[in-house]
Amino acid sequence: MPECASAGLSLSLVPINEPGRQRADAVRNRARVLDAAMRVAARDGAANLTMDAVAAEAKVGKGTVFRHFGDRTGLIGALLDQAEHELQEGFLNGPPPLGPGADPHQRLLAFGSAVLHHEQDHQDLYHAVVKDTHRRFTVPARQVRYTHVTMLVRQLDPTMDAELMAHTLLGFLDTALTNHLLRERGMKLDRLEAAWKDLVNRLCS
Amino acid sequence: MPECASAGLSLSLVPINEPGRQRADAVRNRARVLDAAMRVAARDGAANLTMDAVAAEAKVGKGTVFRHFGDRTGLIGALLDQAEHELQEGFLNGPPPLGPGADPHQRLLAFGSAVLHHEQDHQDLYHAVVKDTHRRFTVPARQVRYTHVTMLVRQLDPTMDAELMAHTLLGFLDTALTNHLLRERGMKLDRLEAAWKDLVNRLCS
Repeated sequence: MPECASAGLSLSLVPINEPGRQRADAVRNRARVLDAAMRVAARDGAANLTMDAVAAEAKVGKGTVFRHFGDRTGLIGALLDQAEHELQEGFLNGPPPLGPGADPHQRLLAFGSAVLHHEQDHQDLYHAVVKDTHRRFTVPARQVRYTHVTMLVRQLDPTMDAELMAHTLLGFLDTALTNHLLRERGMKLDRLEAAWKDLVNRLCS
Repeated sequence: MPECASAGLSLSLVPINEPGRQRADAVRNRARVLDAAMRVAARDGAANLTMDAVAAEAKVGKGTVFRHFGDRTGLIGALLDQAEHELQEGFLNGPPPLGPGADPHQRLLAFGSAVLHHEQDHQDLYHAVVKDTHRRFTVPARQVRYTHVTMLVRQLDPTMDAELMAHTLLGFLDTALTNHLLRERGMKLDRLEAAWKDLVNRLCS
């Protein structure tokens, strides 16, 4: 956000309160538009998330929506960031077995279930991203997941090639793949969860 | 190919020899252009494979190249089909341990090495496809690989979810992923092969 980039200079160059208030307004407006977008996506589905619909819901001009998010892809990316942030909180700082405190085997089992359920809960949003942007927006999210899984694999068994094993495990949880299996092939989430557990248990044995 | 679509009608509607000769000419011309394209790709790299260069190499008009392959993407797809066909011959009908005759564990080990080496040998071509068409052309190839790996997993251990395990294993060998690891991350092929063996051995234990 451009507001942050100027924060270091503001003290000496301009009156203290002005930029602070402007920044706070901008942050508040952005959050307000994002909340409106979440409501539109939940009510009408991500496929019907238009800049017009979001502007109407947030009771702001369409220009405000464009200014904060660039375009529809940027808006969906921001919604996904927010959703992904909740998931990350769970595996980075949440209670065990997903968060710190459980052994790596249990955490890995919980991680797969959490990702599968999370994407199911936000399937409309993840589906829109996979369709619209060829997974461009899932890349930073994937990096956080990758770092986490690599760490767990390393703790689990230092003889494994943790990086490549992490790619394999994340390949199973790949959004485009699970979308294909659940939506196009009609598999049940239970089946994917069971296969994840079997995979982790076999790798850990 | 349009030649094949009219084959059933040709006997009663037109003199017997004419369409046969036309079809044979068309097949021969197509093969000749494809051979030329292979030489251009091998000599100049797939990135420099243009319709003009292929027409010049095959000593035919540019229109002939377009008629047989539609566009550059179609031409690269045809080259990839040919390369993929060689690989398929190896795992479907070739000698063990890759082909029939070895036990499924050995065949699975050999399959990963074969795919990794094959794509390395044709890396320029696979790379062009991944970049140009977002993997559209690897989809039929993936289906054959998927059927094969599902069969091996089923033979190996009927208690595994063979379909999901096959997706996991193929995720490791995914062209976009191996391209990323080998080209952008600078990993060695040996390392990928070793991790494939470890993965298969753990899943089979």
